[in-house]
Amino acid sequence: MEEKERYDVIVVGAGMAGLSAALTLRLHNLKILWLGTPLLSEKIRKAEKIKNYPGISSVSGEDFGALLRVQAEEAGLSIVSETATGIYAMGGYFAVSTEKNTFESLSVILATGVESVKSVAGEEEFLGRGVSYCATCDGFLYKGKTIAVVCTSKEKEGEADYLASLAEKVYYIPLYKDPAFSAPNAEMVGGMPLKIEGKKRVEKLLFKDRELAVDGIFFLKSAAPPAVLVGGLKTEAEHVAVARDMSTNIKGLFAAGDCTGRPYQYAKAAGEGNVAAHSVVEYLRSLR
Amino acid sequence: MEEKERYDVIVVGAGMAGLSAALTLRLHNLKILWLGTPLLSEKIRKAEKIKNYPGISSVSGEDFGALLRVQAEEAGLSIVSETATGIYAMGGYFAVSTEKNTFESLSVILATGVESVKSVAGEEEFLGRGVSYCATCDGFLYKGKTIAVVCTSKEKEGEADYLASLAEKVYYIPLYKDPAFSAPNAEMVGGMPLKIEGKKRVEKLLFKDRELAVDGIFFLKSAAPPAVLVGGLKTEAEHVAVARDMSTNIKGLFAAGDCTGRPYQYAKAAGEGNVAAHSVVEYLRSLR
Repeated sequence: MEEKERYDVIVVGAGMAGLSAALTLRLHNLKILWLGTPLLSEKIRKAEKIKNYPGISSVSGEDFGALLRVQAEEAGLSIVSETATGIYAMGGYFAVSTEKNTFESLSVILATGVESVKSVAGEEEFLGRGVSYCATCDGFLYKGKTIAVVCTSKEKEGEADYLASLAEKVYYIPLYKDPAFSAPNAEMVGGMPLKIEGKKRVEKLLFKDRELAVDGIFFLKSAAPPAVLVGGLKTEAEHVAVARDMSTNIKGLFAAGDCTGRPYQYAKAAGEGNVAAHSVVEYLRSLR
Repeated sequence: MEEKERYDVIVVGAGMAGLSAALTLRLHNLKILWLGTPLLSEKIRKAEKIKNYPGISSVSGEDFGALLRVQAEEAGLSIVSETATGIYAMGGYFAVSTEKNTFESLSVILATGVESVKSVAGEEEFLGRGVSYCATCDGFLYKGKTIAVVCTSKEKEGEADYLASLAEKVYYIPLYKDPAFSAPNAEMVGGMPLKIEGKKRVEKLLFKDRELAVDGIFFLKSAAPPAVLVGGLKTEAEHVAVARDMSTNIKGLFAAGDCTGRPYQYAKAAGEGNVAAHSVVEYLRSLR
């Protein structure tokens, strides 16, 4: 068997916290894998004028994103455009699976941000029993079946296309503006899904005024909730519980940025990414 | 008696953490007093190329400082060029004394950085018993006496001039490059002071190979150590102990930046200043 390349650190997420971590890790000449969407976070692009980020006087979100992309390139950093679907502590190292690959590393920085969209009641409970976050991983299980696809971002519409090519019937629930997805076997459903019900497995997705009978539900988000992504990770409400050095309850796994809690601010995310990177450097030193 | 103006918040320190806090507080329309050196931190000016601050691609410390000064001005922020010499929790409000004034506020953000120069053994122990951090406050006590002046920054030479005009004899111990201070009654002493000795009060300042008999010792630093500045403040070694929301053990007093610990990085300081500002906003809301 071919031996797997092992990274020093995998940075999961390419928003402000991920960038800040990657820039600092880069200065330490570590072997880094940086996973995320190639646009350096949709959120940065969407942001209005930024007024309280030290060093940047009142810039638009779009210009700020461009600036950050240039900086990342100049630093020789490149983003691998895959979404982490699971992070596993293997004892001494981590395995990080995406929709296409499994990567290995000695440490991980989780910088996945927060979903602006709330979880649906039952989402965690039914994970692996009809709930999935990964079209590529689990889509084939629903060949010829009826599924709901809850999508929080236009950029995930391609994955919905893929699911529609497999399932017999798709209820498509877009939680963003101006959805452009369509398929002959898809029905668009408006409103917020409230609750998942079922005995052993998912059976229904409930809305305020209707319910859909389904075999499975795909949540197409930019990242799965931290507790789902990393089994055994300690969280407080929807946020990763971290110490001042950004360490989590899992040795070698650090977190930074919005996923660790409020305020959801660029400066905070940049600071935490920086601190997490320094903690990784110390952690790797402790392994030698 | 004239009623004293009471600020919502006093930001102590005008480095990166103080600026970040002030920018965010400003967006919340609070009544802010910002104390510090008008140069936005000597350290920023001195820094070499900055390579891992998100949004700023490889800029010199000097240019970065200029950028930050412009941003502060554009935000309508101005720095009151006084050094805090004592911060007192008065029960429900704070009194912050400088070499010239006493100010009052409902909350305080401590962003004083760290002294690159270590404390001398006995420095805290003899505080108020021969050790002082404030030439203007305590200089007159040493009229006609012999003092040592330990100075960590060229910008404090003016205070040394003042002390030399009062004392009979001054031992001047510069802990920086190219000192330009001189006075007819001053003797320049090289090397690092190691220890302060005395019975009730300061009597001697010890070096590796000599000792000076003195009545008092002035430490002219950009800021007194946090534990000296704020009585009862919980510290860990030389750093202020803070929670994730940058609160300290004193209600209404928050800290941010290098004074809270390593890594000493701009991004960390900016992030913590931002978080401290948000915590102040919440704290003030809780008082209403």
